Amino acid sequence: MENTTVRLAVRPEGEINDRTFVIASEPVPSLSEGDIRVALEYCSVDPAMRTWLSEITSYVPPMAIGELMRSGGIGEIVETKSADFQVGDKVMGRFGIQSVYSGSTLDVIKLESTNIDIRHYLGGLGGTGLAAYFGLLDVGALKNGETVVVSAAAGAVGHIVVQIARLKGCKVIGIAGGAEKCSRVIEEYGADACIDYKSEPLAERMKNLCPDGIDVYFDNVGGETLEAALDNIALGARIVICGAIGEYDNLDSVNGPRNYLNLIGKAARMQGYVNFHFAEHYETARADLIKWNQEGKLQFRDQTEQGIENFPAILKMLFAGKNNGKLLLKI
Amino acid sequence: MENTTVRLAVRPEGEINDRTFVIASEPVPSLSEGDIRVALEYCSVDPAMRTWLSEITSYVPPMAIGELMRSGGIGEIVETKSADFQVGDKVMGRFGIQSVYSGSTLDVIKLESTNIDIRHYLGGLGGTGLAAYFGLLDVGALKNGETVVVSAAAGAVGHIVVQIARLKGCKVIGIAGGAEKCSRVIEEYGADACIDYKSEPLAERMKNLCPDGIDVYFDNVGGETLEAALDNIALGARIVICGAIGEYDNLDSVNGPRNYLNLIGKAARMQGYVNFHFAEHYETARADLIKWNQEGKLQFRDQTEQGIENFPAILKMLFAGKNNGKLLLKI
Repeated sequence: MENTTVRLAVRPEGEINDRTFVIASEPVPSLSEGDIRVALEYCSVDPAMRTWLSEITSYVPPMAIGELMRSGGIGEIVETKSADFQVGDKVMGRFGIQSVYSGSTLDVIKLESTNIDIRHYLGGLGGTGLAAYFGLLDVGALKNGETVVVSAAAGAVGHIVVQIARLKGCKVIGIAGGAEKCSRVIEEYGADACIDYKSEPLAERMKNLCPDGIDVYFDNVGGETLEAALDNIALGARIVICGAIGEYDNLDSVNGPRNYLNLIGKAARMQGYVNFHFAEHYETARADLIKWNQEGKLQFRDQTEQGIENFPAILKMLFAGKNNGKLLLKI
Repeated sequence: MENTTVRLAVRPEGEINDRTFVIASEPVPSLSEGDIRVALEYCSVDPAMRTWLSEITSYVPPMAIGELMRSGGIGEIVETKSADFQVGDKVMGRFGIQSVYSGSTLDVIKLESTNIDIRHYLGGLGGTGLAAYFGLLDVGALKNGETVVVSAAAGAVGHIVVQIARLKGCKVIGIAGGAEKCSRVIEEYGADACIDYKSEPLAERMKNLCPDGIDVYFDNVGGETLEAALDNIALGARIVICGAIGEYDNLDSVNGPRNYLNLIGKAARMQGYVNFHFAEHYETARADLIKWNQEGKLQFRDQTEQGIENFPAILKMLFAGKNNGKLLLKI
């Protein structure tokens, strides 16, 4: 049995390129006692992947040269030496970008059969849905009726944030690139308005749409968008730093927000987080997300791209803003 | 009766200079019903003054050309048409930089006779003491035993922060410029260590002194010092943005912290404030500060400079780091 793997070959400077990864076929190892073998069906493709490729320790150490590209994935057990898993079980875990996972059951979760599309466990019920949930409700301490602005509002995390803010009775302004995305943010996710940063003056539109200021700004992009938001915060505002996709290609020369001193006069805060800081609340969060989904108040948008050999190109889609909702790789 | 006034003449670009202010003698107006006249004794000299001179609305509108330099002050009533005040009363108010205040009693407070040096009402018991108190305990949410780093630790706010953190049982690291200041921060204010940013490698020293990371960073300076702190925060850290004296001369080209994304992995926050956001707690705060002072746990350091005609030079001392503790102008 052969396993197709994606490994880090050369750390990219700036955008990832043809030399960044090496894609190869490797024989699968035999299983040790307690191990499982999983035929992967879907892998999660996330902006944070770009940060792990840089020689910078963020919340996890950087990837080593030759290391399998880290990723969450879903697949089916095809061989097992673990009493806890049967052949045919659908499982989720940190399997990496490869076609066949062979190894321990550490942090592997069995997905019980439900009427939920299993892909959602990598999206709206996975890391991105939880990031939206904890970021908006815990870090952002969202209160009913507040004014919320969300960048990358058609993206994996953003489209969930828009919908949760909406169902909490908030005024929601999205920011996205292009008329098609903006229209989806309004029509499908329920935002009151969406600013097309590619064709509209961002700061001016933000000011007009939020005359009383922004209570919660949920930031996925950084850069000038963050600065425009900082210029329009309300007293007591919370800025949720979920990510900064605009900066990930150049983590060693990030632009800090030049107007961060606006935090002073507005008694405002800017706060970051990673999901695992809320690990004890995963179950509650997933239960809420499933409930809202089944009530028809929250949809999970996935975009599935085919072929492990296309992984580098698929990862690049995120930084070109070419994804709608959560980006998945079908193996 | 003549009144010497300091008025804004030309908005400075960069540092204040000889043309920034016009100092003149003006006749005092006659008092309207309800008004008071105060012979000023001390005026507060604060970094924020520099920000009011710029054409930027912070938490207050910028000063107009020709406007009297805003300042808190203390003086004695010399004439009164208010039933609430008697000639000879010591009062505190937003009197501006002038020798004689003539006007309404709005926000004027009578200072009861106590054994407290009245100058402290402009320092440790005034805006700077309250900024230290609310910044550290409310915004910083300081907990006993945490590791606290304070920039401008020998300054008006900083030296109070060091002492409060100390009496709360914290490990306290100061940052100050020059051996003399550093020795005062340790010997007089009780810090465990003080980094001399003028002669020591800041980031390296910070890392060595805080091997488990910084829980609360109290920032008065911004710039590279803020970035060094962000590189050394502990999980769940709070960065208190009190001011950024290093940036006030160039508010239209402030350096944002390039490593603000460190907030993500450390689930940390950066938060600003102005004292009046805590106005309902002024009495509690002053009572605590007086109690600690009388118990000998908290000293208020003032530096008093003479002569209203020297105001521009005295204000510049703040930005050259030439003050020890709270800077006052004696009229």
